[in-house]
Amino acid sequence: MLRIGMLTSGGDCQALNAAMRGVVKGICNKRKDVEIYGFKDGYKGLIYSDFNMLTSKDFSGILTQGGTILGTSRQPFKLMRVPDKDGIDKVEAMKHTYHKLHLDCLVILGGNGTHKTANLLREEGLNVVTLPKTIDNDLWGTDMTFGFQSAVDIATDTIDRIHTTATSHSRVFIIEVMGHKVGHVTLHAGIAGGADIILLPEIPYDIKAIKNVIDKRTQAGKRFTILAVAEGAISKEDAKLKKKEYKEKLANRKYPSIAYELAEQIEKETDKEVRITVPGHTQRGGTPCSYDRVFATRVGAKAAELILNEEYGYMVAMRNGETVKVPLEEVAGKLKYVDPNCGLIKEARTIGISFGDEV
Amino acid sequence: MLRIGMLTSGGDCQALNAAMRGVVKGICNKRKDVEIYGFKDGYKGLIYSDFNMLTSKDFSGILTQGGTILGTSRQPFKLMRVPDKDGIDKVEAMKHTYHKLHLDCLVILGGNGTHKTANLLREEGLNVVTLPKTIDNDLWGTDMTFGFQSAVDIATDTIDRIHTTATSHSRVFIIEVMGHKVGHVTLHAGIAGGADIILLPEIPYDIKAIKNVIDKRTQAGKRFTILAVAEGAISKEDAKLKKKEYKEKLANRKYPSIAYELAEQIEKETDKEVRITVPGHTQRGGTPCSYDRVFATRVGAKAAELILNEEYGYMVAMRNGETVKVPLEEVAGKLKYVDPNCGLIKEARTIGISFGDEV
Amino acid sequence: MLRIGMLTSGGDCQALNAAMRGVVKGICNKRKDVEIYGFKDGYKGLIYSDFNMLTSKDFSGILTQGGTILGTSRQPFKLMRVPDKDGIDKVEAMKHTYHKLHLDCLVILGGNGTHKTANLLREEGLNVVTLPKTIDNDLWGTDMTFGFQSAVDIATDTIDRIHTTATSHSRVFIIEVMGHKVGHVTLHAGIAGGADIILLPEIPYDIKAIKNVIDKRTQAGKRFTILAVAEGAISKEDAKLKKKEYKEKLANRKYPSIAYELAEQIEKETDKEVRITVPGHTQRGGTPCSYDRVFATRVGAKAAELILNEEYGYMVAMRNGETVKVPLEEVAGKLKYVDPNCGLIKEARTIGISFGDEV
Amino acid sequence: MLRIGMLTSGGDCQALNAAMRGVVKGICNKRKDVEIYGFKDGYKGLIYSDFNMLTSKDFSGILTQGGTILGTSRQPFKLMRVPDKDGIDKVEAMKHTYHKLHLDCLVILGGNGTHKTANLLREEGLNVVTLPKTIDNDLWGTDMTFGFQSAVDIATDTIDRIHTTATSHSRVFIIEVMGHKVGHVTLHAGIAGGADIILLPEIPYDIKAIKNVIDKRTQAGKRFTILAVAEGAISKEDAKLKKKEYKEKLANRKYPSIAYELAEQIEKETDKEVRITVPGHTQRGGTPCSYDRVFATRVGAKAAELILNEEYGYMVAMRNGETVKVPLEEVAGKLKYVDPNCGLIKEARTIGISFGDEV
Repeated sequence: MLRIGMLTSGGDCQALNAAMRGVVKGICNKRKDVEIYGFKDGYKGLIYSDFNMLTSKDFSGILTQGGTILGTSRQPFKLMRVPDKDGIDKVEAMKHTYHKLHLDCLVILGGNGTHKTANLLREEGLNVVTLPKTIDNDLWGTDMTFGFQSAVDIATDTIDRIHTTATSHSRVFIIEVMGHKVGHVTLHAGIAGGADIILLPEIPYDIKAIKNVIDKRTQAGKRFTILAVAEGAISKEDAKLKKKEYKEKLANRKYPSIAYELAEQIEKETDKEVRITVPGHTQRGGTPCSYDRVFATRVGAKAAELILNEEYGYMVAMRNGETVKVPLEEVAGKLKYVDPNCGLIKEARTIGISFGDEV
Repeated sequence: MLRIGMLTSGGDCQALNAAMRGVVKGICNKRKDVEIYGFKDGYKGLIYSDFNMLTSKDFSGILTQGGTILGTSRQPFKLMRVPDKDGIDKVEAMKHTYHKLHLDCLVILGGNGTHKTANLLREEGLNVVTLPKTIDNDLWGTDMTFGFQSAVDIATDTIDRIHTTATSHSRVFIIEVMGHKVGHVTLHAGIAGGADIILLPEIPYDIKAIKNVIDKRTQAGKRFTILAVAEGAISKEDAKLKKKEYKEKLANRKYPSIAYELAEQIEKETDKEVRITVPGHTQRGGTPCSYDRVFATRVGAKAAELILNEEYGYMVAMRNGETVKVPLEEVAGKLKYVDPNCGLIKEARTIGISFGDEV
Repeated sequence: MLRIGMLTSGGDCQALNAAMRGVVKGICNKRKDVEIYGFKDGYKGLIYSDFNMLTSKDFSGILTQGGTILGTSRQPFKLMRVPDKDGIDKVEAMKHTYHKLHLDCLVILGGNGTHKTANLLREEGLNVVTLPKTIDNDLWGTDMTFGFQSAVDIATDTIDRIHTTATSHSRVFIIEVMGHKVGHVTLHAGIAGGADIILLPEIPYDIKAIKNVIDKRTQAGKRFTILAVAEGAISKEDAKLKKKEYKEKLANRKYPSIAYELAEQIEKETDKEVRITVPGHTQRGGTPCSYDRVFATRVGAKAAELILNEEYGYMVAMRNGETVKVPLEEVAGKLKYVDPNCGLIKEARTIGISFGDEV
Repeated sequence: MLRIGMLTSGGDCQALNAAMRGVVKGICNKRKDVEIYGFKDGYKGLIYSDFNMLTSKDFSGILTQGGTILGTSRQPFKLMRVPDKDGIDKVEAMKHTYHKLHLDCLVILGGNGTHKTANLLREEGLNVVTLPKTIDNDLWGTDMTFGFQSAVDIATDTIDRIHTTATSHSRVFIIEVMGHKVGHVTLHAGIAGGADIILLPEIPYDIKAIKNVIDKRTQAGKRFTILAVAEGAISKEDAKLKKKEYKEKLANRKYPSIAYELAEQIEKETDKEVRITVPGHTQRGGTPCSYDRVFATRVGAKAAELILNEEYGYMVAMRNGETVKVPLEEVAGKLKYVDPNCGLIKEARTIGISFGDEV
């Protein structure tokens, strides 16, 4: 009997279900003696032994379905080893559940925080295989994560819609794009949507540079400017602050997010009317795009192969178009940032997109 | 020679171009001796005699195009008769442009404010035909306006995406929908998106009623609650304030919009985590849906017929599936609200949707 | 105890699930003592007593889901009273199932054929409430059916995509649209998609008229012509044939459908290259559009009200924007055709769309 | 002065305009002394010196636009060196136009046939830079072509819609996907759409194997089978024919395409009802997906860099996520097939997808 525990952790995204379907189809296609334990709401379900017994049928017809049929939550990953208020050592609790159910392995789908915990469980001797899930595409060790391309599609669609409005009115439009501390989604959606200015956490901006772009466009007779800003974007000034100082500044800022702050600055500097659009959680929702479905199916199938071969301790990654296994210890705790000197940035600069850094 | 001036005024929306295409195709299909003056950015272009000479070719291929090829702006309609800071009496300026160009008529596409001015120009002796443009569907005298169904589609799509996220996490989700002072878009998108609670300006809400719905859902084992709120929604308490007092309250509120205020109240009342999504200007943007294209083409064609028959002073409306002409004086200055006792509201209540009014 | 049987019959379409959800939510919101018998694959399930017991939970979360959770089939409706090869009188079998299960009423979702049988069951003394389902919008007694607007959206999207290809190549493009014997979908999609020629069953065409339009467009320097043809369109010549002769002609035609026949004729008459697109069953599939979801929810809720009031023998219809009940005997056996003199056709002619009838 | 000729050749596809915009923005961002000659309808425009002078403004706002603003055609590439019926040697004519206009280089966007001619022009001493355009993704030397991902999106959407219909009826559904002689689009869309069987030109099928899959599914209680077939798919028997014999067989086949043939075979072998959907030219049409827009912008910008550096004789390709230049002589005349042993095929087999080759 092969006993597999499965959980999805962190913010939800598109193609989580597609990936799990890939794993389960891949395993059940080869072996009939399989038990699947679906833990509810991420690591919580593992800690509190809260699960459903699932069969391959439960994973049929979910390829196109957004969200996760297991539920997910953002456990406080940093505190995994610290006992809860109810006195439970969470790591021990997870190990207990694992052993009590005689699991052969855990399949864990998640992003950065999730992978830290997954690696910790591996260090504790559990068999773990993980899948790279996040719209942010900030996981180390893989070219791509599922959810990313779908999020880019949605953010791009938002910019497209704003574009038609922009051509009718004479304004500056700011679209704030998700991505946590990295700029991958914003960079891709900004280029795909034809943004004039793209602001990323990896390239601190100068408000004077932004003003210059807007002024030049106005002089050239263009009615509007489209600015795509990553939720984690930062000004050159703020980038000089110590991490703690910046956190405090963020905590005290008057506005809900960077877009509002930028809008105020631009209205002050340029006398232009500014409009803000924040697609927010819609970027995680809905049917995954075809790219993500193929991607998620591939890494899911690869995970099935690893499990059938009893190869544990890996994240399945995509590199140069092929699925590969990457040791969990190499992945955990590292972020994949946008390289400010990468080809994509250079090509964007070539066609005149400003990153707000050159005054 | 037939000389037609054309302008689009107010917030832009989908199918403005489709409607203008209908007018121009309809006229140029019958007469060859036509001159079209496209005024830029709404009434501004008429005031300052800022226009382009257009031909039927300029209106070809724009059926699916969002925005308006003429540009638009929100002139301060109330002050139409008050001289500008440059000393120009705007109404006189518009009349001057009209007569100077020997126009036979003006085709004006717009919403409520636009229609007040259009009626004023009619009173001043100009030949005017108008088309009912607004995502809000709040124009008196017509069952429908173009832009409305497209906006409903987009707001519904937003709720759909949030729905998949909602099933993964255990939260209350608020989606704030456009509509100015009326609730048509929110009502339709809320029902189409499967919202549990819908808050409209026409049915003031009680936070206790909202709390009750959320509590009942939690007791019934439902993980999440979806709340669609119109940007103009109002609480029962605030509905008792005098208009001026309420305006002041709004001006001083700590949050950018109603969704944020509601979120705070719900988090206080229920201890549930709340997430906000504000699709904002995306609701006006992008390709019009097929419904709006047919609708806009129809009213455009009807306007062409009126002009060819020299029937002026009308808005083209849709009533019971047929295009009709409605005297401008009947339309101007009136809002079409959601009737709290209409069939649609009743049917929504039948299936258990709460309007936040019954504790 | 309230015992409700439910079935979906005929070709599937969008919003079947939304409509059933409306019925069930509406009833279960008022009464707790409800049993729901979901018959499988249309009347088949009723004949052979093949059903699942369903609860309100089964109808939760299906608002956006295409298809029908009950399954459907196209029983040979004409032969309802003729015993099967297995000797079963199908009408008696249905009555038997109904009475054996002590049903209080049947909720039947379907189109024309379905309504004939539903009326027959009513005549036999069963309590029946029906809902108007068909992409064709050809049901008598209602302004609209659910499925229609979604099908128009998809057919329009097809024409849109062909349009971009058309502008790149110099050709005639034929898009064949569903609709059985009527032209509603083609008429709406044709206008929404900007077709130059629209051919409907209700307006027989003359190939010479089509040739003329194409020639005129070529002379005017237009590269391409878009022709939307209803699957049931007919030439003036064929319209003169007796029904039986025409059926024979159809049965023997060399091509799978009208589009191919037209293509051959046009290539012969004009020397233009012709391309054919047949979106086919995609027009019935996928998530219902927001319009259809609201519509289906409304008629579903209204059906619930009728059932709770024990008002039987009706189809729920939409007239002038309100849900109403229409006696089944008025509906059964009648088709709602496109009126060749209706406002929509006139407006389409006004903007220069050809219906292939004026040489 | 920098004089650039530009043309798009072969079947049109998404992101052609995006790619040209990238080239022109990239060049005009660095140099102001640029003349752009847009040749009409592919090589035809170059042969007959039929062109428009364009400015960077003409390439503004076309990022999202389907088709090609230059027009395209499928010249008989094989006969490029054979004089036309009007006695014109086409290669000499193209050289003549090039030199007469004092062009510094030609930017050519196209697929396989286009690249043969482009390489021929290079051999004749013209400066050429090409961009990899084709939905088929069959160009040698690049991991990806623009148009491909958009076509996959549309084909996947078609399968999705059929899927909802499939679950309602008990049938076999065949979706025929474009791709000329290769199976890339079908493979990706088939996996993304959850097809049960995928037939590719690169893996000849056996009708018995297909029958087996359908029978097994029926035995397992599944109502339907989804089969995605590439337009170039071939049976094992036919794969044994000589090329000439097969061509003859194709020319004489009774059906318009492979899907119809397969349908007949399956209905004979399995007694199942079969339905066919052929999305056809819609797969080339409409707005490019975000992936293709980024991709096309990147290769366009890279082409601009090459031209500014006077590096000619290359196709811009994408390899491992980076734009590179590939000598034209390496590209011309080679097809990139699906490798039957590639990771993607293996992973698809892992989750139980049949390629119709294992009886």
